[in-house]
Amino acid sequence: MREILEKPTVWQDIQRIRAEAPLVHNITNYVVMNMTANALLAIGASPVMAHAQEEVEEMAVLAKALVINIGTLSAAWIDSMMKAGRAARQKGIPIVLDPVGSGATRFRTETAQALVRNSAPSIIRGNASEIRSLVLAEQSTKGVESVHASEETLEAAQILSSNFGGVVSVSGRTDLVVEGGRTIRILNGHPLMSRVTGMGCTATALTAAFAAVNPSHLTAAANAMAVMGIAGEIAGEHCAGPASFEICFLDALYNIQESDIAHRLKMEIV
Amino acid sequence: MREILEKPTVWQDIQRIRAEAPLVHNITNYVVMNMTANALLAIGASPVMAHAQEEVEEMAVLAKALVINIGTLSAAWIDSMMKAGRAARQKGIPIVLDPVGSGATRFRTETAQALVRNSAPSIIRGNASEIRSLVLAEQSTKGVESVHASEETLEAAQILSSNFGGVVSVSGRTDLVVEGGRTIRILNGHPLMSRVTGMGCTATALTAAFAAVNPSHLTAAANAMAVMGIAGEIAGEHCAGPASFEICFLDALYNIQESDIAHRLKMEIV
Amino acid sequence: MREILEKPTVWQDIQRIRAEAPLVHNITNYVVMNMTANALLAIGASPVMAHAQEEVEEMAVLAKALVINIGTLSAAWIDSMMKAGRAARQKGIPIVLDPVGSGATRFRTETAQALVRNSAPSIIRGNASEIRSLVLAEQSTKGVESVHASEETLEAAQILSSNFGGVVSVSGRTDLVVEGGRTIRILNGHPLMSRVTGMGCTATALTAAFAAVNPSHLTAAANAMAVMGIAGEIAGEHCAGPASFEICFLDALYNIQESDIAHRLKMEIV
Repeated sequence: MREILEKPTVWQDIQRIRAEAPLVHNITNYVVMNMTANALLAIGASPVMAHAQEEVEEMAVLAKALVINIGTLSAAWIDSMMKAGRAARQKGIPIVLDPVGSGATRFRTETAQALVRNSAPSIIRGNASEIRSLVLAEQSTKGVESVHASEETLEAAQILSSNFGGVVSVSGRTDLVVEGGRTIRILNGHPLMSRVTGMGCTATALTAAFAAVNPSHLTAAANAMAVMGIAGEIAGEHCAGPASFEICFLDALYNIQESDIAHRLKMEIV
Repeated sequence: MREILEKPTVWQDIQRIRAEAPLVHNITNYVVMNMTANALLAIGASPVMAHAQEEVEEMAVLAKALVINIGTLSAAWIDSMMKAGRAARQKGIPIVLDPVGSGATRFRTETAQALVRNSAPSIIRGNASEIRSLVLAEQSTKGVESVHASEETLEAAQILSSNFGGVVSVSGRTDLVVEGGRTIRILNGHPLMSRVTGMGCTATALTAAFAAVNPSHLTAAANAMAVMGIAGEIAGEHCAGPASFEICFLDALYNIQESDIAHRLKMEIV
Repeated sequence: MREILEKPTVWQDIQRIRAEAPLVHNITNYVVMNMTANALLAIGASPVMAHAQEEVEEMAVLAKALVINIGTLSAAWIDSMMKAGRAARQKGIPIVLDPVGSGATRFRTETAQALVRNSAPSIIRGNASEIRSLVLAEQSTKGVESVHASEETLEAAQILSSNFGGVVSVSGRTDLVVEGGRTIRILNGHPLMSRVTGMGCTATALTAAFAAVNPSHLTAAANAMAVMGIAGEIAGEHCAGPASFEICFLDALYNIQESDIAHRLKMEIV
């Protein structure tokens, strides 16, 4: 693990994304589709959105990564997510699941859990409450009173990662990326990121773009969160509010250079 | 009513929204979902979009206000709107209905009328032609030839308010907010607001955020229109066209201060 | 055809759009709905989005042009596209079809082909691979080895135009607009246009706005591509990346003047 700190691969991954323009298939929510597509284009990937049951399997295997995001769920879309997930899994295409709103309604929690079981995502990326909702109650041990929120989140991420055997990426003031016993923390970011809708979904889509070019899902997930945070910091220096922040953020993804990574990256092993 | 003029509550409401970040549940149209979420975040509220029949009732009662917007309607969504509306109504959660396009097709007019009957919204917010379409023909009295358009709109809003027993908020060059015999006019605004898609839907969502913190639906609806208009005026001073206007408008919602309200507010009783 | 070069009608069309604000009915994809509506508003048209089977026929015949865009397709939407297409066709309302992703999956290719057969669009607007996918294999003659890509695209556009009897508009570094034996090339544009999602869909929507005011579908399609390219050039001079490019592009559509057309237009007959 030490080599992640000593030789971070963020810039190499960006260069590969820009050179290869990997196709990323998104089955995602209505709210963020436009921003997701623009963020993938800005970093250098090729987005496609397709959700019809008639075509999701064909599209999923054309792609280099699949995003499944349950932000504006309905029954017909769940079938498509399952189909696409199975097709991608069979062909070894990385799948990134964003369990948006899991924990808020039973429908979302159960759908997210079913997607974890049936399509075996490579990476689950969510916020702390979403990740905690995916850990079964009896396993979510110490309880709120005995630990800090961030420790509890780390524990939930570790349990979830062990249970389903993949990477868990949790966004927050500090981002946590966990695979089994290994944990990476990313300290980059900006407060306005929580005031723009779809920033979490953008992180999920970028995670898929990085997973499309980096065979280590742990490193890919961490590198994506680092780029999110660094672009957020650059945007925060040039904006007047959350809407201009989003514009500056997307421009920063497009313009990001090796020196931005070198000077700003704050990635560490817990 | 006089105290609305003498002691406007716009700034108090904004402070409460920022402090409490009320959850606003939106069942709205595809075109504006992103902008709606960003406008709610900018003013300080917490947006959630959910439309599945399996979860709308559960989500609606988690929220502090419910938006029902028929802008891109289909049969499955109407069922969800009805379910969510009934659940919110039972729990006393304010409902804001935006009858987008009512009057343009029979499907929209009939759906809007059914939603008024079945979910008994607290506030109906639309433009003049939408509001007029909800007043039954025999009641829409004097006819076009005998009155100015704005007088006719005011009359329609008054009839509609009396018929369904709630607040009617009509956007236009002058905004009208009506409850029974009481009417508030808001004179703030900017011409570019009509050149950006979803500004009306944004007004509806902000109305819900204000209704989440202000028990007077009449005042909440008027305060939301005032904030819309004032943010529009600020944006109009800093933009180069409708797209930069939208960015400046959302930034202005986020940055709005007590002095902006104090210096710009043009709210009066008719 | 010569008069197109000698007396381009781009500016006249813009003036008519701004004066008449033609209603453009869009059955389009979730990703671009917001941008499409804003682009139509910026150029001066009146957008409406409606896809429910209960209302598409009624809405289509209220409009001055119909956009059918298959970017995020599903079965229920195809039925609505067919219905709206037949209704518009019967009333002589111009139809612009954007076969987004045709060629990528069988579902899209077959749907695009069925829409061409059943609703007889006035104009098909797509990129080179989409247009080529609509030409039957046996007719797509010379093969890749013997011609340059752009020659092959031109040939495909000519075959497609002959087959279905309408205009074919192909976007690319050079845009090609073909009707039977006649071809117009537009050389305006900016590289960032390919890094913003929905620019092709915007071209389709603007093509519909121009077709709403210009009875020559060939000229309308060419004029729309010219305005796209010129607004792109203006935006490219003022932006810092793809997201600010989109904002500047939409502002440029709104602000475009006769002198911008006069100084920048690069339209020629092949």
